[in-house]
Amino acid sequence: MIKTHTEYLTIETRERYEMVHLTPKIEEIVRKSGVWDGLCFVSPMHITAAVYVNDNESGLIEDIGEWLEKIAPRWPGYKHHQTGEDNADAHLKSLVLHHETTLPVTRGKLDLGMWQRVFYAEFDGQRPKRVIVKVLGATEQ
Amino acid sequence: MIKTHTEYLTIETRERYEMVHLTPKIEEIVRKSGVWDGLCFVSPMHITAAVYVNDNESGLIEDIGEWLEKIAPRWPGYKHHQTGEDNADAHLKSLVLHHETTLPVTRGKLDLGMWQRVFYAEFDGQRPKRVIVKVLGATEQ
Amino acid sequence: MIKTHTEYLTIETRERYEMVHLTPKIEEIVRKSGVWDGLCFVSPMHITAAVYVNDNESGLIEDIGEWLEKIAPRWPGYKHHQTGEDNADAHLKSLVLHHETTLPVTRGKLDLGMWQRVFYAEFDGQRPKRVIVKVLGATEQ
Repeated sequence: MIKTHTEYLTIETRERYEMVHLTPKIEEIVRKSGVWDGLCFVSPMHITAAVYVNDNESGLIEDIGEWLEKIAPRWPGYKHHQTGEDNADAHLKSLVLHHETTLPVTRGKLDLGMWQRVFYAEFDGQRPKRVIVKVLGATEQ
Repeated sequence: MIKTHTEYLTIETRERYEMVHLTPKIEEIVRKSGVWDGLCFVSPMHITAAVYVNDNESGLIEDIGEWLEKIAPRWPGYKHHQTGEDNADAHLKSLVLHHETTLPVTRGKLDLGMWQRVFYAEFDGQRPKRVIVKVLGATEQ
Repeated sequence: MIKTHTEYLTIETRERYEMVHLTPKIEEIVRKSGVWDGLCFVSPMHITAAVYVNDNESGLIEDIGEWLEKIAPRWPGYKHHQTGEDNADAHLKSLVLHHETTLPVTRGKLDLGMWQRVFYAEFDGQRPKRVIVKVLGATEQ
């Protein structure tokens, strides 16, 4: 039988740029979902943030932030800023990390490799943001 | 009950590089699909285009185009051009925006945040291109 | 009726950086899955590799590698390397290509455009790595 389950997380960051480790929360939602075999979709409901899969190692997390700043820098000259906004770089950084991610669910659990962890990447924080988590798949026979 | 629904859009652009706003068309397909809770997959069937989620603000759309040109520039020296092609940059730009996107469907509608809009990004246009939209999920009980 | 099918591929590369064409293997898994209409999720179970969709043209494949090296270079100075690792660039390259991909399945087959091919991109190879392939959808009526 098909089963779906949706939750919305609220994430508040102290910093404008911040990476938030989400794996335990996603694992809990998958457990509650009743989905035995399927997919788990995780996405910010905002366009200045992203969800990505990578290492939970603090040095690498800093490297990712510095690297994103190099390829999608904060800069006053973006055309988007003529609307009064100052966060065009946050939109570009969200695009580099591709905004949303999909995760596999097998035997009722996230089916990740040993080092795969799920992160929320905030690029325009210091206010509450929402993340949608939707689990979809088959129940146990 | 599981339900699936697939449509193919044809997109023609006047320009080689062009962003086309797709949200109303995708919303209509989701409505027709009969899916109450699930996922909507949207992807070009070409490798010189991409589908992405971001802001429908004309300044930002220009910023995205100029930024992509910086990190994946048009340039005669790509090895791919030895085959007679001249569009290697379009392949790279498609990779930056990651080609395809997945969207959540809740209560029969696209479940997007206030500013999230779906765009087709063309990098080698001026000819008809196809986009596949596949909605998959559970019907209303 | 909903149907799911999961397989794990093992990929071994001779080189540290290598692109491996996966389309025939994915097509075979879709055929075996019994899914008539749905989605096929393909992802490395590692965070130094990615799965992407693009052209099977050797010049372009070289272009992609050289371009990734420009925007996410191998470099000793990453903070991640203070842990004893030397592969921070592989994590960044995986992020550019966005790690995982989703493919449409229609009438029991991958529903790809004429030039769309699925690749595994290894950035820290010379050892066995796993790729998860999960097919999910409706059976034929």
